[in-house]
Amino acid sequence: MFIKPEQPSIERLVLLALEEDAPWGDITSQAFIPPEAQLHAQLVAREAGVLCGEDVFTAAMLLTDPSLAVEFAVHDGGTFSGGAALATVKGSARGILRAERVALNFVQRLSGIATLTAKYVAAAAGTRARIVDTRKTTPGLRLLERYAVRCGGGHNHRYSLSDAVLLKDNHLAILNRDPNRSLTAMLLEARSHLPHTTHLEVEVDRLDQLDAVLSAGVDTILLDNFSTQDLRAGVAHIAARCLVEASGGVTLERISEIASTGVDLISVGALTHGVRSLDIGLDLLE
Amino acid sequence: MFIKPEQPSIERLVLLALEEDAPWGDITSQAFIPPEAQLHAQLVAREAGVLCGEDVFTAAMLLTDPSLAVEFAVHDGGTFSGGAALATVKGSARGILRAERVALNFVQRLSGIATLTAKYVAAAAGTRARIVDTRKTTPGLRLLERYAVRCGGGHNHRYSLSDAVLLKDNHLAILNRDPNRSLTAMLLEARSHLPHTTHLEVEVDRLDQLDAVLSAGVDTILLDNFSTQDLRAGVAHIAARCLVEASGGVTLERISEIASTGVDLISVGALTHGVRSLDIGLDLLE
Amino acid sequence: MFIKPEQPSIERLVLLALEEDAPWGDITSQAFIPPEAQLHAQLVAREAGVLCGEDVFTAAMLLTDPSLAVEFAVHDGGTFSGGAALATVKGSARGILRAERVALNFVQRLSGIATLTAKYVAAAAGTRARIVDTRKTTPGLRLLERYAVRCGGGHNHRYSLSDAVLLKDNHLAILNRDPNRSLTAMLLEARSHLPHTTHLEVEVDRLDQLDAVLSAGVDTILLDNFSTQDLRAGVAHIAARCLVEASGGVTLERISEIASTGVDLISVGALTHGVRSLDIGLDLLE
Amino acid sequence: MFIKPEQPSIERLVLLALEEDAPWGDITSQAFIPPEAQLHAQLVAREAGVLCGEDVFTAAMLLTDPSLAVEFAVHDGGTFSGGAALATVKGSARGILRAERVALNFVQRLSGIATLTAKYVAAAAGTRARIVDTRKTTPGLRLLERYAVRCGGGHNHRYSLSDAVLLKDNHLAILNRDPNRSLTAMLLEARSHLPHTTHLEVEVDRLDQLDAVLSAGVDTILLDNFSTQDLRAGVAHIAARCLVEASGGVTLERISEIASTGVDLISVGALTHGVRSLDIGLDLLE
Amino acid sequence: MFIKPEQPSIERLVLLALEEDAPWGDITSQAFIPPEAQLHAQLVAREAGVLCGEDVFTAAMLLTDPSLAVEFAVHDGGTFSGGAALATVKGSARGILRAERVALNFVQRLSGIATLTAKYVAAAAGTRARIVDTRKTTPGLRLLERYAVRCGGGHNHRYSLSDAVLLKDNHLAILNRDPNRSLTAMLLEARSHLPHTTHLEVEVDRLDQLDAVLSAGVDTILLDNFSTQDLRAGVAHIAARCLVEASGGVTLERISEIASTGVDLISVGALTHGVRSLDIGLDLLE
Amino acid sequence: MFIKPEQPSIERLVLLALEEDAPWGDITSQAFIPPEAQLHAQLVAREAGVLCGEDVFTAAMLLTDPSLAVEFAVHDGGTFSGGAALATVKGSARGILRAERVALNFVQRLSGIATLTAKYVAAAAGTRARIVDTRKTTPGLRLLERYAVRCGGGHNHRYSLSDAVLLKDNHLAILNRDPNRSLTAMLLEARSHLPHTTHLEVEVDRLDQLDAVLSAGVDTILLDNFSTQDLRAGVAHIAARCLVEASGGVTLERISEIASTGVDLISVGALTHGVRSLDIGLDLLE
Repeated sequence: MFIKPEQPSIERLVLLALEEDAPWGDITSQAFIPPEAQLHAQLVAREAGVLCGEDVFTAAMLLTDPSLAVEFAVHDGGTFSGGAALATVKGSARGILRAERVALNFVQRLSGIATLTAKYVAAAAGTRARIVDTRKTTPGLRLLERYAVRCGGGHNHRYSLSDAVLLKDNHLAILNRDPNRSLTAMLLEARSHLPHTTHLEVEVDRLDQLDAVLSAGVDTILLDNFSTQDLRAGVAHIAARCLVEASGGVTLERISEIASTGVDLISVGALTHGVRSLDIGLDLLE
Repeated sequence: MFIKPEQPSIERLVLLALEEDAPWGDITSQAFIPPEAQLHAQLVAREAGVLCGEDVFTAAMLLTDPSLAVEFAVHDGGTFSGGAALATVKGSARGILRAERVALNFVQRLSGIATLTAKYVAAAAGTRARIVDTRKTTPGLRLLERYAVRCGGGHNHRYSLSDAVLLKDNHLAILNRDPNRSLTAMLLEARSHLPHTTHLEVEVDRLDQLDAVLSAGVDTILLDNFSTQDLRAGVAHIAARCLVEASGGVTLERISEIASTGVDLISVGALTHGVRSLDIGLDLLE
Repeated sequence: MFIKPEQPSIERLVLLALEEDAPWGDITSQAFIPPEAQLHAQLVAREAGVLCGEDVFTAAMLLTDPSLAVEFAVHDGGTFSGGAALATVKGSARGILRAERVALNFVQRLSGIATLTAKYVAAAAGTRARIVDTRKTTPGLRLLERYAVRCGGGHNHRYSLSDAVLLKDNHLAILNRDPNRSLTAMLLEARSHLPHTTHLEVEVDRLDQLDAVLSAGVDTILLDNFSTQDLRAGVAHIAARCLVEASGGVTLERISEIASTGVDLISVGALTHGVRSLDIGLDLLE
Repeated sequence: MFIKPEQPSIERLVLLALEEDAPWGDITSQAFIPPEAQLHAQLVAREAGVLCGEDVFTAAMLLTDPSLAVEFAVHDGGTFSGGAALATVKGSARGILRAERVALNFVQRLSGIATLTAKYVAAAAGTRARIVDTRKTTPGLRLLERYAVRCGGGHNHRYSLSDAVLLKDNHLAILNRDPNRSLTAMLLEARSHLPHTTHLEVEVDRLDQLDAVLSAGVDTILLDNFSTQDLRAGVAHIAARCLVEASGGVTLERISEIASTGVDLISVGALTHGVRSLDIGLDLLE
Repeated sequence: MFIKPEQPSIERLVLLALEEDAPWGDITSQAFIPPEAQLHAQLVAREAGVLCGEDVFTAAMLLTDPSLAVEFAVHDGGTFSGGAALATVKGSARGILRAERVALNFVQRLSGIATLTAKYVAAAAGTRARIVDTRKTTPGLRLLERYAVRCGGGHNHRYSLSDAVLLKDNHLAILNRDPNRSLTAMLLEARSHLPHTTHLEVEVDRLDQLDAVLSAGVDTILLDNFSTQDLRAGVAHIAARCLVEASGGVTLERISEIASTGVDLISVGALTHGVRSLDIGLDLLE
Repeated sequence: MFIKPEQPSIERLVLLALEEDAPWGDITSQAFIPPEAQLHAQLVAREAGVLCGEDVFTAAMLLTDPSLAVEFAVHDGGTFSGGAALATVKGSARGILRAERVALNFVQRLSGIATLTAKYVAAAAGTRARIVDTRKTTPGLRLLERYAVRCGGGHNHRYSLSDAVLLKDNHLAILNRDPNRSLTAMLLEARSHLPHTTHLEVEVDRLDQLDAVLSAGVDTILLDNFSTQDLRAGVAHIAARCLVEASGGVTLERISEIASTGVDLISVGALTHGVRSLDIGLDLLE
């Protein structure tokens, strides 16, 4: 069950992209293609993957020409093999050619994220560990890229700096300048100001930092750049008093090992910032 | 010599990203970091590359807090090795921590593009071939990503569907439906309507299509998915009557071979849609 | 310690209001007041209260005329008595008169909210109960109105439908249509999809609904329209396994009694939707 | 006969409010409510009043889900008693629950204004006095709040600083600094520059200021903070040479007395800045 | 004494125009002009006229590059002869060349309007008649074009459909369909609903329509397409009971004759919709 | 065959104009015209011309009231004589009267441009010369005004500073400051940086400047303010090595003579900045 981006948010992003791709119209189609020419085209996967971008692709077509007919055979979150027909589009050739690149740019990138996420998720299968995203998303596309992570079976971390607290090493370095207040005290004081709905997570770099954080009753502890052995020790020490997240040095190869330590969450920046667009194209049917 | 994005365009994109990353403020910094705390931080490359994003990084900082001081030691288009200090930021800790992720997201992605482009450009060195980008850019970021390609030593293709004509296979398939008009005639007629400043480029899939296109006097011919041998034959046949672009199946490994055929342009979609963000971080200095 | 709205958000709201209040300029001042006329004015409280709106007031003045000088004697969250001088403004008469109404409209409304909130907070003093706001805010002004609640000593509930789950009676009525799935099961399943940072709160109308919710391990239970006696019973039954919120029928008179039951949170819609603007005016000093 | 806000203006405000209330979607409904679930709900008045907000309520529903069916039984300007069914909404449960709070926030506030206005209007019944609003409206909502005043039987004053002149005490204090020019002369000169369609109104604080203003031939004189006796004297002295407005210290209790003095207009800031949202809720029908 | 457009309105229009004129930068200057090159240029009138656009010109320069220095020797509303130096600009060559066309487009068009208006105003000199504009302005530029009319010595009519009533022939034709209500009755009823600040003007085509309109007590009567003789008769019949406006068939040649009939207002659509941009250029000084 | 502006661009401009023309509604129609009143009106040309603005006129009507029916008898680019019926509109009187002025303002101005362009085009008939527009367009309306030029049979020059290079006298004056680099060298270097799709045009003032430019292989040479004799000499000297554009001092009278010199392009600023709106009105049919 996916929480999907809302239609107005999708349309806003697609309109910006359509405007960007043809600020004063598609001069090629208008100069060469007769207005009455029709097209029947197929969205085809040129490699295997997980789909994400059904609504965005459709919006790019319909916002260009509301009379186009788009039908998806595979749906968001669905897997497909190379060569699979994902969708068909029918209608005005000018409309389809105008929207094609924008529609593909979205669906290729989002499906790339979903596909990569699915690999990480598969590698952690059978453990309690969730694969979660980070704030390392493309500026302007966070809403869609987080959705792509969900389509790939991953989970989302906080959306932004506004909806959850994550105290990181840089914050802690600043807090440490004040020798008169303990981290525990500062956490308790902040908690007394923050909304009760705010999740409070703290990053630690060493096992000996755990107790100060646990005393304050945080919701998640992030073990950053821990060895597998230390992760295991951290999980044992925390003993389910809060959630445990692992981050840093997470590769597809190491996922299974990290997941086996018993951590609840593994955050992977690469899901959104090291992703290759999936090869998906639009082929003419007739 | 680079043509740089203009300040208002950069600020618009950065403001959207800042808003996206903290729709109602950075609750972590505001809850934990005293307003008077200062930070001195360094932008550090964790791997070698080519820089792109100086102005965007600076804008993210200054739009958050105009009193921050940002100084770059390496400039856009400059190369650096792993561990290099790229820039320093000084000022309010709250301001720097609020802007950090947005600033990094831009500079990591853009430097990733510049760095990848530089590899393609190096592989074509000593030939007449330009490495050029495509319209496969991230929706909303085309302006910046094209600039990143230039920073990497690459060149830009047309900006959008509005500023140059590129007749592709799908267009030609539709034009072919009309048996009564030759491609040459259609090209000549379109030319008579288009602005004289409009570059006219046509894609061909086979050598035997060349003459019809050449008769119409186009500006560039795109040889799509040609073997190295056919590229060479195409270049010879065209004989400098127009520019020649190669595209399709272009990998870093094949670049040198393709470039050696004498083509003027090699377009590489992967420059912008298959790119890994470069690993660049912000370290505290004190 | 208050988390303050960020400057760009404030400026966006103020610019809209300034535009609304004079779409084609302030014709009175421009027709009558010489451009060189200066004004020295004082923001004066005509009744006692708690201040909120310092930055908004200042932004209204400075966005109209950056050369105006605004100085606040009382700061956000500070209390004042009737007749108190809150701030002074100095500079161009045209600028001050142009911005006056917009500046006052904001500060009167926000201080009205802060002042009312402070009354509820005082009534709950000495108990563990936080006074929290709701989503019954003025469309477009949620960011500022939530801040006003904090200035009055209150706390915020979730910001929006996006950042926390609150299952209310209407949701439960729909879930009850499916006789094959228990509420506990549905809560557990939803939790498995939601981000780990998402606070999960469920509203109950009767004590006998508590156990199904508690079994699922939610973060907060909302006791809606409970009698004082039932609130006390609910708190006892929940026994600190999660937070307890009281809502419905909350008046200033009943606050102390409700707070004494041991609930953690009392949400009060009236903080933002039944509020009278505080009487604050701008008086000429000379 | 009401002049209604235009549809695009309504939709712009509603879209901003919907975005504010769920920047990345309604996670509760999406996590718990099946997409196919239907709802039949009723908008019910929990207290008596005058309706305002029919189009805004409908827009909130339809902009969320165009397939929802909204039907109003009472129309804008209509009165209703506590318990009255005002409207019904039918359709997708997810859609209705997503829009509910925004729709209610608007209709509660606007009906609160209409209801309060109707009380002032009733108190002045049988006299020539119009109850008029002021510029003390909620930033961003002036268009709707002025409409709410009309729904309650009140009238509007000028819309903004741009469409009519109102010389107030602060302006006059500045004009008085120039001993060489009389107020009459200044009014005549300004009139010679202002558009002929511009209404010219001047505030006076004392009876002895009337003649200077009357000599210039203004359209309305505002008697600010006058005693009932002085109001009566002012009306007599002005003798229908222009309209007369009373303002300052206007309470519901004093309205009838003020109206009986023969003034044409009574402006009441409280109509929009001291208003309690009316208690209106959305109940499930089945 | 001019009421000037406010700075934020000017900047919004200028930014749109700058963006329109170089959506991805000024490639000529960036490719050819060294960043350190300086320019000293002069705004020169190539024909005589009346200036309008000082602030817009300056904004175009400063929004492009805040370090440019702009100094005007002639000010808005000032007259100049052909060859006059109107202003100087100094600073970065890239900045000046980037802004030049946008700055000129505004100042040429606005000065064209001011200059044309001044001719109509001169032709009516010595009479009571004001030359006023209409709503026949360029879409998006009404604020500036109305200001240009004022700079030329003309006056403004209503700003828009929202701030004054003008019942025209088309309205009257529809009202005439209802035989049961007289125009006088309809005017009186509308007046009872409209704000007291709303100017009420009615167009008549024949002298025999005057009495019905006068009975209702309107503010202005518009005599449309009247002969000079009928205008004179109309003015006599109305006898100062309201303002009189003449419109239709107004040419520069006929102005003096029309003005001599005693009408208060002559509205001239040509001021804004038949205007030639004034020839003003930017010359290099060194 | 015309390249038409896209629907979203048209709608954005029309919505701004509708908002500008009635920021808070059309008070005349709402106060006087019953909501159920219907109108059948005709768009009538009061003088001969060439139509432009079909889609803009229709959008103004339909964005105001989607139930209006608009039918055009003449289409964009079509010629008509004075008195011709161009279109009919049917539907709600309030809707038509609300949109009328905005719809007319667009169609009058655009048809004015198309009509003027057609005169220039006719004067150059039988020669190879294209009549082309310039960047002297109304700020904000370039997209539509360029389309109007095409409707009149003219052609477009570059859209903006971003899509083609045009080195003008001011640029050359700056380049001349550097005695160490020849213009030819600078042109070749710039070409090596610019996209291959970028058209490169250089303005010359004297015949002896031609060779330096021709050596660099530019795409077009602009002969600015040349006598007819020099134009002829320039065309001969250039000898088809690139396109030749004439500009400066171009009047309708001189067009034929200029065109006869063999230039490829004649750019005429007056097409868009010296244009009179065509007289087109909306008449009631019944």
